[in-house]
Formats: sequence, C-alpha cells, structure tokens
Amino acid sequence: MIDFYTFTTPNGRKPAIMLEEVGLSYTTHKIDITKGEQFTPEFIAINPNSKIPAIIDHDPGITVFESGAILIYLAEKTGRFMPQDLEGRTKVIEWVMFQMASVGPMMGQLNHFKRFATEKIPYAIERYEKETYRIFGVLDSQLSEQDYLTGDYSIADMATYPWIAAASFAHVTLDNHPNLKRWAEMLGERSAVQKGMAILQ
Amino acid sequence: MIDFYTFTTPNGRKPAIMLEEVGLSYTTHKIDITKGEQFTPEFIAINPNSKIPAIIDHDPGITVFESGAILIYLAEKTGRFMPQDLEGRTKVIEWVMFQMASVGPMMGQLNHFKRFATEKIPYAIERYEKETYRIFGVLDSQLSEQDYLTGDYSIADMATYPWIAAASFAHVTLDNHPNLKRWAEMLGERSAVQKGMAILQ
Ligand SMILES: N[C@@H](CCC(=O)N[C@@H](CS)C(=O)NCC(=O)O)C(=O)O
Ligand SMILES: N[C@@H](CCC(=O)N[C@@H](CS)C(=O)NCC(=O)O)C(=O)O
Repeated sequence: MIDFYTFTTPNGRKPAIMLEEVGLSYTTHKIDITKGEQFTPEFIAINPNSKIPAIIDHDPGITVFESGAILIYLAEKTGRFMPQDLEGRTKVIEWVMFQMASVGPMMGQLNHFKRFATEKIPYAIERYEKETYRIFGVLDSQLSEQDYLTGDYSIADMATYPWIAAASFAHVTLDNHPNLKRWAEMLGERSAVQKGMAILQ
Repeated sequence: MIDFYTFTTPNGRKPAIMLEEVGLSYTTHKIDITKGEQFTPEFIAINPNSKIPAIIDHDPGITVFESGAILIYLAEKTGRFMPQDLEGRTKVIEWVMFQMASVGPMMGQLNHFKRFATEKIPYAIERYEKETYRIFGVLDSQLSEQDYLTGDYSIADMATYPWIAAASFAHVTLDNHPNLKRWAEMLGERSAVQKGMAILQ
C-alpha cells in the first residue's frame, strides 16, 4: 500500500497520473500548502524539503520525495513507462530531468511573478515568460516527429503534462506550438491522466 | 571514448567530477556560453535545450544532456557511486533531483539577479537569497548525522558540490551551516573533485 501526500498543483499531480496508469493501490493525504501544512514536524519527517509531493510505499517500506524521483521509483518498481535497457532509460530520465530542472522551476517563477508576487516587476515577468516560451519551443521541436517526448508514452510525458496543462494559469498559450498543443490534447484524453489531474477534487 | 561538451560553470563541472572519479577516458570540448556557442546548429543537434553540459558516449553510441541524467547514466554504466538496489538507488536519485530542481535553479536565479541582471531588483534578490539559505538548511540538516548526502559518497554529492563551492559568487556564505561547510571542505580535498572543478582551466 502506498500513502501519497499531495495537493492540487502540477507537481502534486504527476505521481497521481503514474499511480493511476500502473493501477497500484494508494491512499491520498491532502497537505494544504496554502495553510502551511507542509511545515509540520510530521510532514518534514517525510520530506525534509517541506514540499509536496511525497510517498511512503509500505512494501518495501520507503519514503520518497521529489516528484521526478517518485516517478522513476514507480517505473522501476512496476517495470512500466520507462524502458529497461540503459539507452532507453537514459533518454526517459533526460527528459524527466529537463522537466524537473527547467519546465517546473521556470514556469513556477513565472506563476510567482505573474500571480503571487506582492509587487509587479516587469523585468522578472518578461524574463520568465521568455524562458517559458523558449522551453515550449524545445518541447515542440522534440514532438515534431514523434507522438511522445521519448518515443513511447513514458514518465517523461507524465512529468511534463501537468505543467503544460496549467499554462493558462500564467497566461501563456500553446497556440504557437502546435506539436506541443496536439500532444497535450492527446494526453488529456487518457483516462489515467484525467483521474490523476482531478486528484483531491 | 566519451566526448564531453562543457564550460567552467557549476553544471558543467558535475560530469567532470564523475568522469574523474570513475576514470573513464574522455575528451573535453569547450562550448563558450559567453560567446553563444551553445546556439550553433552542431551543438543543438547534441542538446536541443542548447545548454552545457552534454556527452556523446561512442560506446554504445548515445548522446546525453542534463547533468543529472549524465551522472545517472555514468553511474549505471560503471556500477559506481549509486547503489544497485532499488531503495538505495532511489535515495540517491531523490537527492540528485533536489539538486536539479532546487539547488541549481534557485542559486542560478540568485546569480542572475545579483550579478547579471541589468536592473537591481531588491524583491527578486531577497526572494532567491532567502530560498538559497532555506536550501542550505535542508542540506545542512541532511548532513548533520552522516558524512554524505545519502550515506556513502555518491553522484548526489557530486551534483551538489559545484553549486555549494560557488556560493561566494552570489555573496552567500556557508558560515551558518556548519555541517554543509564541513562536507564541502571534505569533498574539496578529493583529487577527482579538484580535477573536475579545474576543467578547461
Ligand atoms: N522539485 C519538487 C518541487 C515540489 C514543489 O515545488 N512543490 C510545491 C507545490 S507544486 C510546494 O509544495 N510548495 C510549498 C512550499 O514551497 O512551501 C518536486 O518536483 O517534487
Ligand atoms: N538543468 C541543466 C542546466 C544546464 C545549464 O543551465 N547550463 C548553463 C550553464 S551552468 C548554460 O548552458 N547556459 C547557457 C544558456 O542558458 O544559454 C543541467 O543541469 O544540465
């Protein structure tokens, strides 16, 4: 059994999609980050970085935080959505890393400066909007000759989708990136993706 | 033989440390990002994200970008600096992810707003300085009862070290985080770390 600690944000939805795809049984625990529940001693014992998502897998008994690490763990545990051979695995991990290091942090900064910052700072908004569209361009070109980021559907797509699906939150559009838009529409039709995105709702 | 494309920055030094630790033979190619060499068609064919570092491993013939993916690839190829069992591997990947998603991007933003931005923006400087010290706190507490981030010396330490070693570039200090400081001093004494840090110099 897996205990899943999460909230209704892009990073919180990634493991939900994977858990739905592989059909492992899990219990969802809401950590309301708008109320500071990520800072309780109980949660910091699970994730010393005090952020969602995190899981406890009681078989074999392991706690995992960082959404990218959770996805790789679940892929290894189940043998699904990541190739077994070194080259195939490496390509999937590379695009999970691109999501973790660029898509997430940069769109996260854009959200902050567009939606949450207590000052309107044009320089910062422009910086992160430009970087977001550059990232959309990288993804769009990767999807120009294949349906999924690394060939077959994988945890790299699951990691990236919730951020792309949330583009409108930061008032950015997929309209100039038709391959990325098509990919997002296609993923949005999967039942496991729909269930993962609807977590805690 | 491995072709290694890099520059004298924290992300560029991570694979250099690992290549030195495992003793694989490699050729270093300088991609001068201050001259825009990351944007040539030749380099974009290697990394569609147009950033260093990247490698081409001619045996078996694979191109890998994203420093975290390169480290995991080299650890899997050599069987070193990452445990083989699922639980041990997962803990190392978790801390590599923490470096890739938090340490690197947040210290990178701090560097930008402190050193490179064309405007001085106190709000942004304060935001990323606060986040950097929060991250130092997470690392410091992880190192309070063990010598390395995940028990034994691993690619998680190699991923994190070049950023911590560059703290003074953004005028932040390790002085209030004694465990992190001790760890950085200890790593700095390793010969492979010294060689990796001195790449292209
Ligand atoms: N790199 C982490 C990022 C996690 C993250 O940023 N979580 C956010 C919600 S999407 C959070 O918990 N924020 C609360 C806080 O920072 O205090 C991951 O991918 O798991
Ligand atoms: N997540 C990437 C980040 C790579 C990165 O940001 N590289 C910087 C140098 S440290 C770069 O190439 N910058 C040039 C540019 O952005 O145009 C990784 O870890 O490999």
